[in-house]
Amino acid sequence: MQHTRFADAECPIARSLDAIGEWWSLLILRDALDGATRFDQFSRNLGIPPTTLTRRLRTLVADGLLSTRRYQDHPPRDEYVPTERGRSLLPVLVALQTWGERDRDPDERVLQMVDAASGAVLDPVLVDRATGRPLGEIDAVFRPGPAASLGMRERFDELQGD
Amino acid sequence: MQHTRFADAECPIARSLDAIGEWWSLLILRDALDGATRFDQFSRNLGIPPTTLTRRLRTLVADGLLSTRRYQDHPPRDEYVPTERGRSLLPVLVALQTWGERDRDPDERVLQMVDAASGAVLDPVLVDRATGRPLGEIDAVFRPGPAASLGMRERFDELQGD
Repeated sequence: MQHTRFADAECPIARSLDAIGEWWSLLILRDALDGATRFDQFSRNLGIPPTTLTRRLRTLVADGLLSTRRYQDHPPRDEYVPTERGRSLLPVLVALQTWGERDRDPDERVLQMVDAASGAVLDPVLVDRATGRPLGEIDAVFRPGPAASLGMRERFDELQGD
Repeated sequence: MQHTRFADAECPIARSLDAIGEWWSLLILRDALDGATRFDQFSRNLGIPPTTLTRRLRTLVADGLLSTRRYQDHPPRDEYVPTERGRSLLPVLVALQTWGERDRDPDERVLQMVDAASGAVLDPVLVDRATGRPLGEIDAVFRPGPAASLGMRERFDELQGD
């Protein structure tokens, strides 16, 4: 399956989407972060044909989101573990989970975040690091950063101009 | 373009991906949140053919992520504004932006979040609402919520069992 390539490769959102690849990458990664490592564990949960799953796992390894670890030599068998880069996608999964359950009371939630050490249920919220204010309570908007190109600055100027 | 449909429709992450549709939905929505409302503004920034853009905008309206507003009667012209549901995807875009720029120093960033009222640059971080602890410093994991099915509980039991 080919990755979608976006024209505006400067935008970090577009670049992230490019780097992740396809929707299913996030679901395989979700399973990997939930503790799945072996082919049959991914296969059982995702319900996709083995040849498709093999191809997708290879893509994730090539993209540096999963790495392989040999767990059996005869016959050779690898398991899949998330890389640091793969694990760092957790906030994207959390944002998708929160959005998917935003209209549900806590006791209606299908999935929740838990502190693995203490078992405490977590309530993830996006805040500004310096002030601790939730972004949902601020009129938070994207603006060009210090390294933005002239083209990106002009785009924002035009959109905010009227 | 057809939406990918995932087998595990119970998982809120999979359901969110289904509801968002395709990668490009997020880029159109990004533009809408940046202030784009008119066809030519989306067209200029996204660099996709007009017929494709028309179809995608219609899909986003049908999915309840954008709504239309008539701004001219002769000839009739609509502009597109994000719905509350569309605006509530901002944390997903922020997570993708943060991931895309995670290896860059602040002065190398192409995009940044700003408080529209004060102009202050924001540094979005995902924390636990009750304790304020950043999720990156906790061993935060997904676990079945109160409304999880038996199947989902068994899946987690099996993954954590060994």
